[in-house]
Order: sequence, then C-alpha cells, then structure tokens
Amino acid sequence: MTTLITNIGSLLTNDPELGTLTDAAIVLDGDQVAWVGAAAAAPDADERVDAEARAVIPGFVDSHSHMVFGGDRTAEFNARMSGKPYTAGGIRTTVAATRASSDEALERNLRRFIGEMLRQGTTTVEVKSGYGLTVEDEARALRIAAAHTPETTYLGAHVVAPEFADDPAAYVDLVTGPMLDACAPYARYVDVFCERGAFDGDQARAVLTAGAARGLTPRVHANQLTEGPGVQLAVELGAASADHCTHLSDADVKALADAHATTVATLLPGAEFSTRAVYPDARRLIDAGATVALSTDCNPGSSFTSSMPFCIAVAVRDMGMTPDEAVVAATLGGARALRRTDVGHLAVGARADLVLLDAPSHVHLAYRPGVPLVSAVWQGGARVC
Amino acid sequence: MTTLITNIGSLLTNDPELGTLTDAAIVLDGDQVAWVGAAAAAPDADERVDAEARAVIPGFVDSHSHMVFGGDRTAEFNARMSGKPYTAGGIRTTVAATRASSDEALERNLRRFIGEMLRQGTTTVEVKSGYGLTVEDEARALRIAAAHTPETTYLGAHVVAPEFADDPAAYVDLVTGPMLDACAPYARYVDVFCERGAFDGDQARAVLTAGAARGLTPRVHANQLTEGPGVQLAVELGAASADHCTHLSDADVKALADAHATTVATLLPGAEFSTRAVYPDARRLIDAGATVALSTDCNPGSSFTSSMPFCIAVAVRDMGMTPDEAVVAATLGGARALRRTDVGHLAVGARADLVLLDAPSHVHLAYRPGVPLVSAVWQGGARVC
Ligand SMILES: [Zn+2]
Ligand SMILES: [Zn+2]
Repeated sequence: MTTLITNIGSLLTNDPELGTLTDAAIVLDGDQVAWVGAAAAAPDADERVDAEARAVIPGFVDSHSHMVFGGDRTAEFNARMSGKPYTAGGIRTTVAATRASSDEALERNLRRFIGEMLRQGTTTVEVKSGYGLTVEDEARALRIAAAHTPETTYLGAHVVAPEFADDPAAYVDLVTGPMLDACAPYARYVDVFCERGAFDGDQARAVLTAGAARGLTPRVHANQLTEGPGVQLAVELGAASADHCTHLSDADVKALADAHATTVATLLPGAEFSTRAVYPDARRLIDAGATVALSTDCNPGSSFTSSMPFCIAVAVRDMGMTPDEAVVAATLGGARALRRTDVGHLAVGARADLVLLDAPSHVHLAYRPGVPLVSAVWQGGARVC
Repeated sequence: MTTLITNIGSLLTNDPELGTLTDAAIVLDGDQVAWVGAAAAAPDADERVDAEARAVIPGFVDSHSHMVFGGDRTAEFNARMSGKPYTAGGIRTTVAATRASSDEALERNLRRFIGEMLRQGTTTVEVKSGYGLTVEDEARALRIAAAHTPETTYLGAHVVAPEFADDPAAYVDLVTGPMLDACAPYARYVDVFCERGAFDGDQARAVLTAGAARGLTPRVHANQLTEGPGVQLAVELGAASADHCTHLSDADVKALADAHATTVATLLPGAEFSTRAVYPDARRLIDAGATVALSTDCNPGSSFTSSMPFCIAVAVRDMGMTPDEAVVAATLGGARALRRTDVGHLAVGARADLVLLDAPSHVHLAYRPGVPLVSAVWQGGARVC
C-alpha cells in the first residue's frame, strides 16, 4: 500500500541534502518514506492526498514526558498562580495518587495523553516512570508505558521515596539494586533528577552507572533549578541528553557544545511557563554549537502541556530560537535525544511519521500561537488523525 | 427544542448569585438558557447530553480582532523572530494585499478565522475594518464583517492611508466625513489607533466624536507602545473599551478604575507575545478596581492567534492574573467590553452560548497551555462543534 501526498506548499525534510522543498510531494510505502521530490515529478501511488499547498513536517518527537500517573494537581497549580499558600503538594502528591491507582486507570490516562499528543502531531514519545518509587510501582509504570512506546525511561530516582526520607542512601541502594532489576526489562533509558533536594552528583552517578551496566542509556534531569553537576555528569557519562539546562555555567555550555554529537540539551519551556521561572537560553546553547531538542515535559505538576506547537511558540518568543530552529529541535532534535535515526526527518527510508499543517509554512507554528494547526497525521505510514 | 446538559463537573456561570456550581446541569431552550442548577434537580428535555463530569463555561467573547484582510506576514514575522532586518512590512503590507483581494477572498478568509475561533470556544467576536483605508475598501470590509457578526467596528483611523502620508489632516477629514458616511451603516463601534506614528490625541478625539455623532460607540487602541493620551480620552468620551493598556501612568490606572462601569481595559497578550514586548500589568488594573477583558487581537501582523485559551494561559503566566480572573475576563469581561448583557454568563435568560471542556475545571485552560481542550460548543442553543 503506497500513499502519495502531493501539492505540498512547503515540505520540511530535516535532511541536509533536501532542505525545505516547495511544490513538493512525498510517497509513503508501508511504514517508510519511499520517495521525496518535486510534485511535478512524483510517481503514482495506490492512494493520493492533496495537501492543498499546505505544509508538511516530520512528526514531532517528544523526548521527555512523565505520563504514567494518577490524579492531577489543579488545586496546587491554581494556588501557585493565585499567589496563595499551598501546603503539601509536589511530586509526593502524585506518588500517592499513582500508587493508589489501578493498572487500568493508569493505562487509560496514558492512552488519553498519547492520543492527545498524536492529535497535536507527536508521533514518537518518551515516557518515564518516577511516580511509583517502590519496586512494584516503578516496574508497573514501565510495563504500562512499554505497551505504548518503545521509548521508556526508568526514573526511580525522581525523588527519594517518602518511606526513605531519613535514609536516602538506602533508597539509592534500592534504586540501583532490586528496583533496577525489576525495571530494566521494560526500560531503554535510566534517568535521575540531579538537583538540590533530590539527588546529588555522587548519587546521580551511582544511579546512572548502575543503569548503564544493565544496558540502559543514561539521560539526566540537569540544572533545572540551580547550577548543579548534572550537565557535566551527563556529558562525562555519554548520556543521550541533559534535560532542562536552565541554569548553566560557561563550562556547562562548553561541555554540551563539545558533546554535541553525543549528548543533546533538551529544553522544556512548559516547565518554566507553568512555574513562572526564568527560561533556558537556547540561543546561547545553539551559538556555542550544542544540539538542542524541545520537549513538553508533560507531567501534572510543573508542565501539564502535551503540545509541541505550544513549546515551539514559547521557545521562539522567550528562548531566542528562530522558528526554523524551534521546529527542527521539536522533530530532529528530539530524535537525536532518543538516538533514533529513523524519525525526525523525511528522507527516503525514514519512518513515515509526518504531519500536515493547516498552514502554508511550519513558521506558522510560532506565528499562530495556541491555534490547533495539525490537520492530519501519519504514523508508520498509516493515517491516524 | 430543549437540551439538557447534565453531569457537569464544574459550571462557571459568571453569575454573582450562582457562582461556580459542581454536579450541575443546564437546560437550553431555543437560543436561551432556561434553567441552571443541581444535576439531581434538573428537569427533562428533548435532548440529553452527558458532560461526564467535565467543565462547562460561557462561550468566549473576543472583543478585539482584525480579521478582514488579504495575504499574511509570515516573512515579516520570521525575520523579526530570527533577528534579521526586514524592510517594508507593517500594516501597509496588509493594506495593499487587502485592497488587491476580491470580496470573495476576504469573506472566505474571515469565515475561516471565525470557524477556527468557534472550534476554540469563541461564540461572540468583534471584527474591525482598518486594512482598506479608502472609502470603498473600508465600507467593503465592514459590509463583509457585518454579514458574520453584529459586533463590527469602523477603524478607518488605523493608520494614515499611504496616499495621505503628506497630509494627515486631510485623511482625518476623510475618516470623519465621507468614509464615516459610507461605513456607519455597517458598524456598531468607532475605533482609532491613538499612538505616535498613527493618530495623536486631537485627531483621535475628532474621529471618535464624529463616529459618536453618527451613533457609533467609541473604543480606542490606547497606550500600546507608549504612555499616550488614549486611555484618558477613552474614559472621557465614555468609550466601551480602552484596548492594549500596556503602558499606563498611575493616573491612567485610576481613570480606568473610576470608569470601571463604563470603560473596560481590554488586554491583548497575543500582541506582546508575538512582538516580544513587555506585557500589560493586569494585576495592577484589577487591584485598582478596573474591569478587565482579554482578547486575541487576531491580525496578521502583531498577533496572529485566534485562541482565547492561549491568551488565558499567557495572562496567568505573565500578567499576574489568577486562572479564575483570566477566564472571567475572556468571557464576561469581553461581554462588558461589547456592552452585551446577554453573553459572557450563564444565568436563566442568557444566550445559550457555552463550551464543554475536555477537563474537569476551567482552571485547566491555564494549567494545560496549548492543549486543545474544547470538546463541544453551543451557539444560540445549537451545537456547532
Ligand atoms: Zn522531567
Ligand atoms: Zn487592534
């Protein structure tokens, strides 16, 4: 079964040779891209779609989310944004709600968010554990996630579990021991929240090296709230990504630039948006030569958006990215952060994950903030929206 | 024909007696709200809709847009956001494209944006002229707009028409004379861009008083780029709204507070978002006692969003509004800015314009930025999305 999408006004391929084509066409064969070029030269196909001069881009690759959870934190968000005090709250609220949820409820929730993402053009998504914090609950989260995406990340080291508040070292032993044993079969990556109040550099190193010894690729929640050791550790261990990168020293920026082929700086503007925090400086990273990705960080506490277009608009407005850079970071950048060479671009042989926009150019994703511009989505060659 | 919407998790009525109801129901009869109350006490109806514990709010009232235009300004936006020089551009680019457009093309464009707004929950929208700047082109714009909304605004005084660049006084004579004669039959309001480079206080006063003498209600583009005389003029002339209000003196804030029952301060965060400008301080206005509305300012130059949910999220993040205040400003506030008592709230007798959200609370409009949360829309009692 082949599909020809023709009369494409603007086709962003993210391919260094092809660039952005106008008056273009693309042919999907099975789950792959079989042909890309000028509309006038396009071959025949079983099915033909007229793009009506609108834009086509690769499906978004959202490389950082936390979508296996119970409950929500509306009251906490409302209090924060209303300047009212709110005791309790935080990650532990979601941990309690997640532990109390049935498998079915967690799965229903995850399916809902993945569907919501798909309708907004996200065809590849990474999902982390991190709201279970027991051996059973972390393994359960990853088992549920792995049924919906191959991009699963073990984040037992999200915060110290409440039961171990007085003995964080014992919790690290659990995370690097029995919990890792239970989770590794369902996970591709290992992650740690390296931050004051969560895990310090030594603890983070222990978690990441234990995971790597089990074949998991490291990624790090790094330098979100303070200038910590997270970025340097990520680069040193060859992590796939250092995520957040909000507070960076010059040495951190240089480290990410030097590691541009290995470790992606993944920026999560939804988190700064929803916590009224200062944004990361994408311009500084790009100018230094770092590889940058954009992601939603979708989670019920600090960034409850599932919208890559929203992240693109904010990145352009507040992080110094050009519209082109932001869209590339949300597609090819995310693919690099997941070390996927088959997605994030639209050359022959790539996975047929693509989005038809209700706009003549991908620049409209920033130019028309908040407007739902996704008109159709193909995932693995099948039209899914 | 009556419709019962029941099992509403949260019903924002914007009615001072009713407030926000939980476990609620609402009955629509023809184009009006016929009953509001507890789901358990709801009467029967011809049709029954299960809200599945989700939230219902009044339809958004977008009181400021410029949607009769030709072309777009993608290249100008892209250059601005990429830090590249861009000569020409500005309103005059759109004036040229609008004059060159057929009636059919302008109407198709307008219908498209109104449809886009409807799918995002906007059931009442104001539309301005201002990209024609000749007698014929301004009247044409308003004739087209009036076929789609009763809320039409004559904005011949958007900028001085290029043909009058050397003689602005003659252009004001045209705007207050023959152009007003041609436009008044299609317009409810008269508006002026009171700003350096556009029209000064005396010119703005001449435009507004001439319009008022023809029965048009004044509204003013005021204090967007600089602290100008716009706000004071709006209050003095009893305008329905002073729009933008980005640069305000203490005296301006006091004037708007004193005029809270007459002149609404309409804030347009899309404009600051898309031009990387400083946001208006909604908190200062609300704390002083002013009535505040939110609107998209939808136009191809400075704010090409049609999304009221996006404006709500930005107003909460960057303008000091609470989620409740922002949603009220986007519904009841807009209604006040248009002096409409039948929309913006959901008490018995109100127009049956309402939105079912795919969320348990209207707070999610800020909590989940960028996510399309509009699940269903009723306009005048008819389900339209
Ligand atoms: Zn995270
Ligand atoms: Zn305007």
